[in-house]
Amino acid sequence: MTTHSDPSLSRLFTPRSIAIVGASATPGKIGAMPVSLLRQHGYDGRILPINPRADSIQGLPAAPDLAALDTDVDLVILAVPAAHAAQALQSARPGQVGGAVVFTSGFSETGASGVAMQEALCAIARERGIRLLGPNCLGYMNVRHKVYATFSPAPANGAVALGGIGMVSQSGAFGAYAYCMARERGLGLSHWISTGNEADIDVADCIHWLAHDADTRVIMAYMEGCRDGAKLRRALAAARDAGKPVVVTKIGRTQAGAQAAASHTAALAGDDAVYDALFRQYGALRARSIEDFFNLGYALDTWKQRPQGKRLGIFTISGGVGALMADEAEEAGLSLPEPDAGAQARLLERVPFAGPRNPVDVTGQVVSEPGLLLATADDMLADGRYDALAVFLAAAGSSETLWPTFETFAREMRARHPDVPLAFCALFPPERRRELERLGTLVFEDPSAAIRTVGAVAGLAGMSGAASDASTHTSMPPVAANSAPLRDTYNEVQAMNVLRQAGLPVPDCTLATDADTAVAAAARAAGPVVLKVVSPDILHKSDVGGVKLNLSGEDAVRHGHAAILDSVRTHCPNARIDGVLVAPMAPKGVECIVGMHRDPVFGPVVMFGLGGVFVEVLKDVSFRLAPFDHVQALSMIREIKGYALLQGARGAPPCDINALADALVALSRFADARREDFSSVEINPLLALPDGQGVLALDAVLIPNAGRAGARSS
Amino acid sequence: MTTHSDPSLSRLFTPRSIAIVGASATPGKIGAMPVSLLRQHGYDGRILPINPRADSIQGLPAAPDLAALDTDVDLVILAVPAAHAAQALQSARPGQVGGAVVFTSGFSETGASGVAMQEALCAIARERGIRLLGPNCLGYMNVRHKVYATFSPAPANGAVALGGIGMVSQSGAFGAYAYCMARERGLGLSHWISTGNEADIDVADCIHWLAHDADTRVIMAYMEGCRDGAKLRRALAAARDAGKPVVVTKIGRTQAGAQAAASHTAALAGDDAVYDALFRQYGALRARSIEDFFNLGYALDTWKQRPQGKRLGIFTISGGVGALMADEAEEAGLSLPEPDAGAQARLLERVPFAGPRNPVDVTGQVVSEPGLLLATADDMLADGRYDALAVFLAAAGSSETLWPTFETFAREMRARHPDVPLAFCALFPPERRRELERLGTLVFEDPSAAIRTVGAVAGLAGMSGAASDASTHTSMPPVAANSAPLRDTYNEVQAMNVLRQAGLPVPDCTLATDADTAVAAAARAAGPVVLKVVSPDILHKSDVGGVKLNLSGEDAVRHGHAAILDSVRTHCPNARIDGVLVAPMAPKGVECIVGMHRDPVFGPVVMFGLGGVFVEVLKDVSFRLAPFDHVQALSMIREIKGYALLQGARGAPPCDINALADALVALSRFADARREDFSSVEINPLLALPDGQGVLALDAVLIPNAGRAGARSS
Repeated sequence: MTTHSDPSLSRLFTPRSIAIVGASATPGKIGAMPVSLLRQHGYDGRILPINPRADSIQGLPAAPDLAALDTDVDLVILAVPAAHAAQALQSARPGQVGGAVVFTSGFSETGASGVAMQEALCAIARERGIRLLGPNCLGYMNVRHKVYATFSPAPANGAVALGGIGMVSQSGAFGAYAYCMARERGLGLSHWISTGNEADIDVADCIHWLAHDADTRVIMAYMEGCRDGAKLRRALAAARDAGKPVVVTKIGRTQAGAQAAASHTAALAGDDAVYDALFRQYGALRARSIEDFFNLGYALDTWKQRPQGKRLGIFTISGGVGALMADEAEEAGLSLPEPDAGAQARLLERVPFAGPRNPVDVTGQVVSEPGLLLATADDMLADGRYDALAVFLAAAGSSETLWPTFETFAREMRARHPDVPLAFCALFPPERRRELERLGTLVFEDPSAAIRTVGAVAGLAGMSGAASDASTHTSMPPVAANSAPLRDTYNEVQAMNVLRQAGLPVPDCTLATDADTAVAAAARAAGPVVLKVVSPDILHKSDVGGVKLNLSGEDAVRHGHAAILDSVRTHCPNARIDGVLVAPMAPKGVECIVGMHRDPVFGPVVMFGLGGVFVEVLKDVSFRLAPFDHVQALSMIREIKGYALLQGARGAPPCDINALADALVALSRFADARREDFSSVEINPLLALPDGQGVLALDAVLIPNAGRAGARSS
Repeated sequence: MTTHSDPSLSRLFTPRSIAIVGASATPGKIGAMPVSLLRQHGYDGRILPINPRADSIQGLPAAPDLAALDTDVDLVILAVPAAHAAQALQSARPGQVGGAVVFTSGFSETGASGVAMQEALCAIARERGIRLLGPNCLGYMNVRHKVYATFSPAPANGAVALGGIGMVSQSGAFGAYAYCMARERGLGLSHWISTGNEADIDVADCIHWLAHDADTRVIMAYMEGCRDGAKLRRALAAARDAGKPVVVTKIGRTQAGAQAAASHTAALAGDDAVYDALFRQYGALRARSIEDFFNLGYALDTWKQRPQGKRLGIFTISGGVGALMADEAEEAGLSLPEPDAGAQARLLERVPFAGPRNPVDVTGQVVSEPGLLLATADDMLADGRYDALAVFLAAAGSSETLWPTFETFAREMRARHPDVPLAFCALFPPERRRELERLGTLVFEDPSAAIRTVGAVAGLAGMSGAASDASTHTSMPPVAANSAPLRDTYNEVQAMNVLRQAGLPVPDCTLATDADTAVAAAARAAGPVVLKVVSPDILHKSDVGGVKLNLSGEDAVRHGHAAILDSVRTHCPNARIDGVLVAPMAPKGVECIVGMHRDPVFGPVVMFGLGGVFVEVLKDVSFRLAPFDHVQALSMIREIKGYALLQGARGAPPCDINALADALVALSRFADARREDFSSVEINPLLALPDGQGVLALDAVLIPNAGRAGARSS
């Protein structure tokens, strides 16, 4: 994993010289916009217009082509028709140009001939060592260095403030919208990048680069899909390791959205559930709306200190709105501990009809006694029992009389309780809101949005590299990548043996090829046994009488063995029969389903769910990209709606959740190490036994990757 | 059900004369606010300050008390301490005063002595025929008649526009906040009412009154709970029958919120799930945040025509944001039909790289060819396949150049397609937004909020009185309220008989008191039978060996009968045994759980869920207030997450959902007719058979209302 910026991207995004191919003097033309924006905003590097039909553009001397320039150029902006774009780069000398931003559309987004043109453009760029942003993109802006390599009209109406948010968007329209909203709401940006067709540089490259950028503290990304899952994973890991939170909007959450996304992007989008798993795994906050996207970026950028846990204090002047906020807090996964008894008593002394618990309701009394605000908050926070504080002030925010109270409150809170980030819910006039934000306080109009945002950001607490990256941090022995030659097919016994080697607990079972062996195996078992036919041709064993449960004693086993063979031969006369499996009867437990499949974009993905209706009717499953560690495994177990069943619902004992997590980790490590060998694994059921008794894989189907069988044995 | 306004509320809310008891000359005092607000906003009725220590207040002659006034007074505002409030009313002559708004706090919200004072106040008011709003409330405003019977400072900073929204809030702070937001966003109000402690007039009264108010087209209500469920139900029915949609925020959705609400309101709040059922049943839109509350009120007030169905057209200049909107549409329950093939072809002729399906992506091309907007929309809407249209214009809304295009578009859309309400998602400057709103077009900044709002409002389509009110509209025979004398307890057979009489399908079963009867009953059955012990002392029959399944032939039945009695006598030597039930083995079906319980606020409530983990682990249930009709029953069946199981998941045939709905309707009518007699019914399982084969109640527990048994038989 790289720990430094990619120097080629640094050159592209921080250019000392910019050539604009297709530079124009006509206002509003896409070749005119970057020249005028660069000058309007005071870019202090060299601006080099390229136009064969003009000597000067907007007062600057113009060259006919790149070859005619006597200098190297860090960045070339291509604002010429698609047919001329490649030609323009072709005229560059090797090493002369660092990177190119290609505004031009008419490439891969238009069909086969566009794809060919785009490939030709890429080939020329690669040959000359030029990195490409675009084509079909709105370009980028580097706010600190005043680089406006864009033809978006947005910055012409006013530049966004310089700040800590690095924003990258695959869609130009989304990006421009977000830029305008950021300007309107006073959010400061370090960079704004649109990636368009992503012929070379994609959203993942930008996230990775922003992770190492000194100006960027928070990364906000919009994506429609990605082609290189491993690269995106590395980028998110780099951001996490750099302590820079990532807020991401990815379209295609639903079937309708995914269909729309697929018809919009030519790119393979991959399974949305896997993206979702990836974001969870790396602590990226997924926003489902532009509003959420903004609120999250706003909170992460404005707060100097993020909540270190999920304990929220709600402090309100209205009991009703306090309850509304409590509703939202519960749904956002926040806890609402009560203040210390002393603090409650002191509040009731001050305001006899206050609500002293949490929400703490100081009532409208605060309007006539402004000192209540700080005194109560001090009391609440004295013993460190809150990770964040949300304050509802109703319409009082618009009162000029009370402003000094609120301003002092925000200032003092920051001085006295710097570890407890603060969010106001109130109707402040915009300039007052900005003042509070400069003090590191959030201001929301909608209390519910405030709580949702606090909840999402608090969810990042405890997220760290060590906790989620399994590849380097584990005490488990490595999985041998070539432990055994691959077979064409795996019957149940063979599959169970492979899984046993991978560290999954499987019952001690025997493949009996005749009745005597079955009887002997049953005799070795401590209790009653189950017999199951083993055949590569029979999927549903029970349906053909291929399973006999709970057999004890020689007679029963011998009789069962014969009955299975009879029944199977009657139902499936042509099935190959490998034998009959003899295994101890499983104890009582909760049936889980655990699996692995290969995602075309992200590689091996591990799935977890409960048996029965949970997976089949409710699709109640969670995913993680392999490999992952125990902490991730626990979080994927807790994520499912049916989790209560594992905790011991309906009077049952709680299950051995740690052993379940161990099994998931083992499967994830196996899936990772053997990623070329197997296309899918399904363990169904994986039986979760009562706490302390482990788990047991009772049946498994292993599908080798077509074409790989025998590769190892040769 | 009343079809006219309550005249006493009309007098209170449209007063021609207002006396202010405790009127003050000191600016900012709660007794000064109404006088100054009434004069500031030009109230044209009589303003009568009452103050024994002043001859005139704010330039108006003051009287010492109500008795000193020579006229009747439609409204009295009480702005005096709690201890003096009752006394002030006492001085009124009988019939002199129509209603009183009591600002004063210190009543029931403060504990037992406050409760007593509030009761005293009510008694005096009742005696004199005075309706009470409050105490402990912010009062009300009648915007058309400029009645500012409030001490909220909000209207002093600018009045809200006159409009069609009637707003009522139990909480003053929430109400004041909503008032300021309405003013800020340009929402017009007819009335603004805060109800406070609700000693007399409550939110339900106000909803009912607003339902008959000519100025009000949309009702927005905030509530914390209610004491009279039947009254709230009548109020919602009145609004529905008047065609006035109700948007409601009720706190206490979650455990944390309900706890906070309970500690805030002294009132009994009732079960939130029942409120939720009530709102669904009467087509009230429940908003979970202030933001949603506003967006819903905004859409209902601004649109001249509501969507008549759930088919949404998405029209975008960005494919990515289109997909984001499609995601939200699917989650909001909207469908996205494709445009007609001709329309798609014509769009592709105009814009070769457009997305012609739905979302319809006209691309940024619209910026250079503004005519595309209307031409494409006309094509999409030509054959009436959309109920609403959402248009994403990205940052183009802030372009002055494009404004005439958008304005023409909105105007022409309204003229040409008046039945298709329109929502823009764009960054328009506020004054532009207002212009579009005046044309009946919604404008949202966040596309996701736009879609969510459209989805919720579209959900009202088809909601009508006839469809949801079972009491008067049904073809089923009425349930006799006194069909049989009540017993102290009901064993399984007795319970099944009661349910059979109520119209629920139960199997033909016999209570056998000896083995011979059991054998004879089994012989009458067409196939194998089940035997179950019947005892008032045994709840879990299987656990004590009290159930034998699938018995055929005399021997098996006789043997089973003996085995049951043996086992039960061993396990429960002291249990009374009524006999053994003989019933045919049930066919295969999906196990449902259906029940009835009495909510302390709303009376009998019917519950529906699926058996097994669905109810016990996932709490996947739906409710409706009894009685209800087939349409409501179907919607409560479809509401549960496990609905797919009834539709035939996992290769099973679809269930007889109509028969299931009939059973729910029958239970709801029974629950309603016998509301005094039974405190709960549980039918578990109610077996849903394949389509056309009906349902079957296999077991039932009936709990009579304590103290009612024998009442009928005497």
